[in-house]
Amino acid sequence: MAEAQLTISNKNYSSWSLRGWLLCKLAGLDFEEVAVPIDDPSMRAELLLLSPSFLVPCLSHNGIKVWDTLSIAEYLGELKPNSPVLPKDVKKRAHCRSVAGEMHSGFYNLRSALPMNLRAHYPGFKVFHGAQADIDRVAAIWRECLAAYGGPYLFGELSLADAMYAPVATRFLTYDVKLDPVSADYCRSIMVWPAMEEWIAGAKAEPEEFEELDVEF
Amino acid sequence: MAEAQLTISNKNYSSWSLRGWLLCKLAGLDFEEVAVPIDDPSMRAELLLLSPSFLVPCLSHNGIKVWDTLSIAEYLGELKPNSPVLPKDVKKRAHCRSVAGEMHSGFYNLRSALPMNLRAHYPGFKVFHGAQADIDRVAAIWRECLAAYGGPYLFGELSLADAMYAPVATRFLTYDVKLDPVSADYCRSIMVWPAMEEWIAGAKAEPEEFEELDVEF
Repeated sequence: MAEAQLTISNKNYSSWSLRGWLLCKLAGLDFEEVAVPIDDPSMRAELLLLSPSFLVPCLSHNGIKVWDTLSIAEYLGELKPNSPVLPKDVKKRAHCRSVAGEMHSGFYNLRSALPMNLRAHYPGFKVFHGAQADIDRVAAIWRECLAAYGGPYLFGELSLADAMYAPVATRFLTYDVKLDPVSADYCRSIMVWPAMEEWIAGAKAEPEEFEELDVEF
Repeated sequence: MAEAQLTISNKNYSSWSLRGWLLCKLAGLDFEEVAVPIDDPSMRAELLLLSPSFLVPCLSHNGIKVWDTLSIAEYLGELKPNSPVLPKDVKKRAHCRSVAGEMHSGFYNLRSALPMNLRAHYPGFKVFHGAQADIDRVAAIWRECLAAYGGPYLFGELSLADAMYAPVATRFLTYDVKLDPVSADYCRSIMVWPAMEEWIAGAKAEPEEFEELDVEF
């Protein structure tokens, strides 16, 4: 039996599930996935961005239940202090948590206008103008971090921040969002992160019955 | 000169400023307030819920700039480990961060339908039906925590979780939201928290020129 269980929902659509799963991988946690059926109403609400469900991602470890992505990140950071979840330097760690927090609480227009859909590709997609300010801010965060810490990931090595922004990188590719060269490079780095490749392969292997959700976004 | 500076905006309307400020009080930090003028466009966007501004709250300490409320909480928890920001028990701490995370990333309908407005009181206010599910979930979180840890605050003593939900308690009172007795009691406990009384007195002393914002909510 694995050390922990991570409850997730759909791999193609659930960006919060992806973030929690990447964090567990980053922490080197021995965990097994527990999938919540998509016909659960709270799961549908989560996928349709009507609610950031408190059911996924949810980590069960040692009799402790931890939900919400940032809460899981802090739990893993304490459980696996030598893992790269949080940078070791206090100033870098504060910066990492700040940009992770921006992703967690914000970018509502980006998240609703460009929902994660790993199997899709829409060349020439017309981005809702309200989402452009979010896209610009995300790219500004990326450029600032990559310049400050030298890349290839936001804080040099992989960290919480990359797990938080990885779903955004997939959205930029799915919806053909025009980016500066530095941000476009970062998207490519995220897509070849082995954990991302593993998750995306899982998304592509999911049954097509979930496609019906598309029309409701 | 104080140990740290906290940048905030308007005391009557800015719920994120209030949360950051309560956290600094809870940590026992020696800090001074720096107010950003409300005529700054990013401040207006933040108050109008168009963006969770990364400008407020923002903590400057020891050459380190920390923004986003949860990031500030974790920074303070590390800086002042004996303060009550985070519960000492690992399970309780995970629970505290999980419900704080729900407030941070969610309840969009509640936040947009019932914006914080400390000077106002609307008896019999008709709550937008989309916000009711958020209200129910908040009250369920409160009841669960108060039953598990015995009150009077969510995790027994004051913690991060109370700082996160304090602006919601004020909204429930401002908009005359019907609550179960346990949740109503908790709102009253929040309102007599001395730090809250100090903040609210500050909000009431603010110039009326900001009232124009009301019409745009």
